[in-house]
Amino acid sequence: MDDEISTRDRILKTATVLFQLKGYHATGLNEILRESNAPKGSLYYYFPEGKEQLALEAVNLTKDFVEKLITERLAKIQDPAMSIKNSIEEMTYLMNTKKDNRTTLKSIQNVSVSLIALETAVTNETLRKTCESAFDAWQDAYTQKLIEGGFSRKKAETLGLVIQSMVEGAITMALTKKSDEPFIAVARQIPVLLAQ
Amino acid sequence: MDDEISTRDRILKTATVLFQLKGYHATGLNEILRESNAPKGSLYYYFPEGKEQLALEAVNLTKDFVEKLITERLAKIQDPAMSIKNSIEEMTYLMNTKKDNRTTLKSIQNVSVSLIALETAVTNETLRKTCESAFDAWQDAYTQKLIEGGFSRKKAETLGLVIQSMVEGAITMALTKKSDEPFIAVARQIPVLLAQ
Repeated sequence: MDDEISTRDRILKTATVLFQLKGYHATGLNEILRESNAPKGSLYYYFPEGKEQLALEAVNLTKDFVEKLITERLAKIQDPAMSIKNSIEEMTYLMNTKKDNRTTLKSIQNVSVSLIALETAVTNETLRKTCESAFDAWQDAYTQKLIEGGFSRKKAETLGLVIQSMVEGAITMALTKKSDEPFIAVARQIPVLLAQ
Repeated sequence: MDDEISTRDRILKTATVLFQLKGYHATGLNEILRESNAPKGSLYYYFPEGKEQLALEAVNLTKDFVEKLITERLAKIQDPAMSIKNSIEEMTYLMNTKKDNRTTLKSIQNVSVSLIALETAVTNETLRKTCESAFDAWQDAYTQKLIEGGFSRKKAETLGLVIQSMVEGAITMALTKKSDEPFIAVARQIPVLLAQ
């Protein structure tokens, strides 16, 4: 299977994971080349603008992947509260935050842009805007589900922003605490929030 | 006034802000020296273990500063819901996230360890644990307020974790969106959460 993945895709996938795991600044181009088993020179051949282009495409890859994931999960259950609660609980598997699991290059999924967002928020306007568009897409998925569930557009938009903020916070807390608990605790409050 | 601040304090304060603004990896020791107007050689004199020691002390400085800030604000209003709501709303001033404000080295307060937490969560166990202790201290401030307000310890601990996650998420979202909106939206849901 692996041979079928093009060199370009392999470089991009490796960069995406490294940016998420170690960050934009700590990840070197040589490390991306080495970890993706790509021939020297191929990085600038496929990504002529270098690290910033890689980061931009990496964030967009994560954006699309997570948007699809959230939308699919929310479609599984009709009730907004239960579907959003379940979707957040399921993130514990993707984030792999259990204390006894070691997060490695192989185990991590490309599900978060939090680190690169914080790294670039005040230093790189292009990357900041790309991260913003990812957050907006994920937030919109919650908002749409709430509108379908009968919430007014205004209410759904506010709650979509709050839910997306709760998920981002759970990511930061879960990674730092090496614990699933923040996801579980946040997920359980969703029905309370949506009962208003 | 500035002359009265010791060189050690000036180096540490500058490092704290740079780590929060640009991150641990993107901040160089030369930049810290330059921005703090400290004489060459003073950095290793005061911080013999270099960047990791600086980061560790920077996170602890932010931990104590924010813990005091939260505790003081929560003490101002007796009702837990209103005091926590107000405290989160006030964070918009500290984070300085308005679109027309440029976040600079001079304007930013040392109020967040999110970036350094995400940067080190899987790569530096010493710094991860220091960030975890900061999150725990802030979370405990909310939990204590809830216990004083009549919540059971178990409920207060869960809600403390959820509130701390919401604040962390609002920080990531507000910085990325260059907007106060995430703090305002999250703050307004606090009374809903605590009415259960």
